[in-house]
Amino acid sequence: MSKIVLGANQYGKAECRLVRIDRDTPRHRITDISVTSQLRGDLSAAHTDGDNSHVVATDTQKNTVYAFARHGIGAIEEFAQRLGRHFTADFDWITGGRWEIEQYSWDRIPTGPEGHDHSFVRAGDEKRTTIVTIEGPDTWVVSGLSDLVVLKSTGSEFWGFPTDDYTTLKETTDRILATSVSARWRYLTTELDFDKTFTDVRTIMLDTFATVHSLGLQQSLFQMGTNVLEAHPEIGEIKFSMPNKHHFLVDLEPFGLDNPGEVFYAADRPYGLIEATVERDDAPDAGRAWDTVAGFC
Amino acid sequence: MSKIVLGANQYGKAECRLVRIDRDTPRHRITDISVTSQLRGDLSAAHTDGDNSHVVATDTQKNTVYAFARHGIGAIEEFAQRLGRHFTADFDWITGGRWEIEQYSWDRIPTGPEGHDHSFVRAGDEKRTTIVTIEGPDTWVVSGLSDLVVLKSTGSEFWGFPTDDYTTLKETTDRILATSVSARWRYLTTELDFDKTFTDVRTIMLDTFATVHSLGLQQSLFQMGTNVLEAHPEIGEIKFSMPNKHHFLVDLEPFGLDNPGEVFYAADRPYGLIEATVERDDAPDAGRAWDTVAGFC
Amino acid sequence: MSKIVLGANQYGKAECRLVRIDRDTPRHRITDISVTSQLRGDLSAAHTDGDNSHVVATDTQKNTVYAFARHGIGAIEEFAQRLGRHFTADFDWITGGRWEIEQYSWDRIPTGPEGHDHSFVRAGDEKRTTIVTIEGPDTWVVSGLSDLVVLKSTGSEFWGFPTDDYTTLKETTDRILATSVSARWRYLTTELDFDKTFTDVRTIMLDTFATVHSLGLQQSLFQMGTNVLEAHPEIGEIKFSMPNKHHFLVDLEPFGLDNPGEVFYAADRPYGLIEATVERDDAPDAGRAWDTVAGFC
Amino acid sequence: MSKIVLGANQYGKAECRLVRIDRDTPRHRITDISVTSQLRGDLSAAHTDGDNSHVVATDTQKNTVYAFARHGIGAIEEFAQRLGRHFTADFDWITGGRWEIEQYSWDRIPTGPEGHDHSFVRAGDEKRTTIVTIEGPDTWVVSGLSDLVVLKSTGSEFWGFPTDDYTTLKETTDRILATSVSARWRYLTTELDFDKTFTDVRTIMLDTFATVHSLGLQQSLFQMGTNVLEAHPEIGEIKFSMPNKHHFLVDLEPFGLDNPGEVFYAADRPYGLIEATVERDDAPDAGRAWDTVAGFC
Repeated sequence: MSKIVLGANQYGKAECRLVRIDRDTPRHRITDISVTSQLRGDLSAAHTDGDNSHVVATDTQKNTVYAFARHGIGAIEEFAQRLGRHFTADFDWITGGRWEIEQYSWDRIPTGPEGHDHSFVRAGDEKRTTIVTIEGPDTWVVSGLSDLVVLKSTGSEFWGFPTDDYTTLKETTDRILATSVSARWRYLTTELDFDKTFTDVRTIMLDTFATVHSLGLQQSLFQMGTNVLEAHPEIGEIKFSMPNKHHFLVDLEPFGLDNPGEVFYAADRPYGLIEATVERDDAPDAGRAWDTVAGFC
Repeated sequence: MSKIVLGANQYGKAECRLVRIDRDTPRHRITDISVTSQLRGDLSAAHTDGDNSHVVATDTQKNTVYAFARHGIGAIEEFAQRLGRHFTADFDWITGGRWEIEQYSWDRIPTGPEGHDHSFVRAGDEKRTTIVTIEGPDTWVVSGLSDLVVLKSTGSEFWGFPTDDYTTLKETTDRILATSVSARWRYLTTELDFDKTFTDVRTIMLDTFATVHSLGLQQSLFQMGTNVLEAHPEIGEIKFSMPNKHHFLVDLEPFGLDNPGEVFYAADRPYGLIEATVERDDAPDAGRAWDTVAGFC
Repeated sequence: MSKIVLGANQYGKAECRLVRIDRDTPRHRITDISVTSQLRGDLSAAHTDGDNSHVVATDTQKNTVYAFARHGIGAIEEFAQRLGRHFTADFDWITGGRWEIEQYSWDRIPTGPEGHDHSFVRAGDEKRTTIVTIEGPDTWVVSGLSDLVVLKSTGSEFWGFPTDDYTTLKETTDRILATSVSARWRYLTTELDFDKTFTDVRTIMLDTFATVHSLGLQQSLFQMGTNVLEAHPEIGEIKFSMPNKHHFLVDLEPFGLDNPGEVFYAADRPYGLIEATVERDDAPDAGRAWDTVAGFC
Repeated sequence: MSKIVLGANQYGKAECRLVRIDRDTPRHRITDISVTSQLRGDLSAAHTDGDNSHVVATDTQKNTVYAFARHGIGAIEEFAQRLGRHFTADFDWITGGRWEIEQYSWDRIPTGPEGHDHSFVRAGDEKRTTIVTIEGPDTWVVSGLSDLVVLKSTGSEFWGFPTDDYTTLKETTDRILATSVSARWRYLTTELDFDKTFTDVRTIMLDTFATVHSLGLQQSLFQMGTNVLEAHPEIGEIKFSMPNKHHFLVDLEPFGLDNPGEVFYAADRPYGLIEATVERDDAPDAGRAWDTVAGFC
């Protein structure tokens, strides 16, 4: 007869909202993040017996996040690694975990050519992300972005698809293509200029989306991934999840009007959903890098 | 004994999501809006007897929105007025209504100095809004913006408030001040360059928030409103609803650390909420302008 | 030349999330609410000069909410009035305000016929609400509910509507009717059994929606309001805002299938929006009761 | 030098909102679901060359979902399997995929002891879920629920945790324990009475949460999983993700009041997050069952 046992588990504090102001000069810098810290290790007794002697309180994890920020944040990939090294070093039974950070952007309010010294305006809904996973001696860094919403008003076709009894879609050689890019990429190293790389990856994605004449969202996605990997040997693979945010041409014929690609209904649901990985054929094994990343495999 | 009767009422189609592409040249322009159309008039029989002979179907209102967009949108204030005039002119028993439009911004993807011709990226979560109210011969235009999130990392104080048995807050001469601006202003005319005015009002709000040394969110708000009204005689009054998005200085003393205004916890709820009107003492009566605007009076 | 002045204003603390456990017996009772307190009065100097000597801190308002809960909550209408009387009595310059409370329901976990003594499960997303407005000697109580989602799978028609050049909708004698009821009603007294009345009003609404053969959502709405007012002389008027949550019959003909009212697409946007007041012709003037209630007038 | 290649990928239509009414008798039954269909297989050319000859349009997938509903839904696990078998049988190059369904509950409006025949009210925000994964000859069924929000007002302790320089949390022998249960369990068979099993698993979870005297959320979670597995040999493992929805006792001492476990502040963020698997030691390998399930591993 089977025995019932504890399997994989982790726990921690989620979404510690933290704003740090670097104010060593009158020109302040702002870092606005949400930190989730989760620990793994020998935690059986807590589950089976309610014995909490190995449970580093989630409140303690939160305190640590804020205390560590006193000494500066830096790139979110570095801050997450610092947190991870602390917990795995300080508690024998904590053998690993995951530290996820989401970062929000602020622009300086443009009161002058250089922007204001200490007044900021939120720069959109886009997020920069990282998930650092540690397991024993190994560390993996998966960074990304989400909610980068883009649209092409032409330069997008969709035709040549197979048909069956349930197909009613018409082919088109000119449509709106719109998506909200979520991307996550695995770094092959834990030491690099993460800020600079992030900015460059984002720019490549935008440029590629803009300039590829698209025969399908899959093709745009693959080209975006390829261009990122070609420019960045320190990235082993990149995963995209891209909803096809449908913009349907409105049929204005009943009202005696044509509609040459001008008036569209922006639909909510359902939506297409395109997900794919672009990778190097010789990338080292991903280990646990993707284990706790929500999404497809 | 009292009689039970129908009181004020209106109905229509809400949140018609509409994207229009102006493509007369290769350099496309995009207008991305959500339109709500609501009619008022002699609609008693629909309520009391289920007699729909006066109920211009909400589906018809939606069709009209899309059909009218075929001839261009222009400023949302103008599109809303065109819709309103159509419905009140075409149906005898429709004596008025409200047409609300929310607009979303897109930037060109910066593939070159001028940006791409037909590829765009969503410019944040901020919205431009208008509510046009028509009643018989009268038309009121109330425009606004929402979700403009701003933050000052210094230049904000809060002290001198009264205390009672329930007061525990400490005075401060240096705190983070952050808010998400929602503003609505009433135009005194239905004819002006709405796009240009909107841009200027927004700039004044940002500049004022940035440069006022704040003794309280009320003071910042009032100065923002005053500066808008001084620069724009065509605006009769402006209403603000501004949450005080608290950023609490984290007490790091238990960890042997000071915290000279550097590490903050960004709280969700509860939050302060500051609402006020700034107005001209000689502004003509607002009539029904504010009747259907959500919020305080 | 016009002078720029401060108009209507109010401020306070929004969404104080408060759970109170009545534990005088082993059979606990839970009250789960969100309280918003906003004050009005002589607050000019705060706006014009940054003088906070009249600004009862929003933090103080929050503390007061939690402290007052120590002595019990009772009906939310009573708790809101207690708060309002406190602030207007204790501070000379506070002449009024609004106290809004939203309440969430919990059921006992059914471990036995009577349910568990101290374990609860959230009972849906529906909310009970109240807004108490005080201005000098006057108090108004507007209570309501929101997010009560209902659906009839038959017994709903829609035909006889006028047509114009933009009409494409077909008449129907059998459709799904679905809505999410938001209702607010004004009490003509500040003293009654608010809990009992709320429960009864909600039951009348549900029963009426269920049993009226509907020729239009307006008709269902009006009947719901009428039945509430007939049963409750202590209510002077009731306002409804009811989206028509469209369920479109899917055209299965392209697939060789009929669809006799069985398969529907539940749409998100756009949606119909029906709003109306049902009132007594002899109800006393509403005064400021509705001034700060979001919605139509 | 490395070559850049396409890795794992899938695509389809997400969130097809579908309501089906069984109306063979006057006593209607309602099934309200959101269906996501995603296909896997030989899809390289679409990504690398924009060749869509293998891309079964997401619009076709949507049509299929609605057409299949014409013949009835049944348990969501069965409907998902029917869809999956169709796509993998009909298209040579489609070797697998995932079909995810979320179901919403409705109660009959209680106009009489049996409830109304065709009028319904939404029963909360809780969702029943399933994810069916097919890969070649293999089929895995992972079912679950989410947004089941529960709270114990006593019978919960937390003490005995380790302390370090960052620990400030006090031990407690009486606190509120609240969580929103998300659970997913893997069936070891594709043929069983899914509806009956779901209902029973949910009841076991509720009962266990209610009756376990909790020394920590981990302990409650493990006991919930154990009880489910003991009662259901057809389930091989169950994964939970349970936020610790903190309810902090408010310190009323500054106001001269005690607070014997009566007044709590319900916090939003940060929150604890407890995740764990409870499993049979002899369960057959999970294969791809969990590959596309968001969450931890």
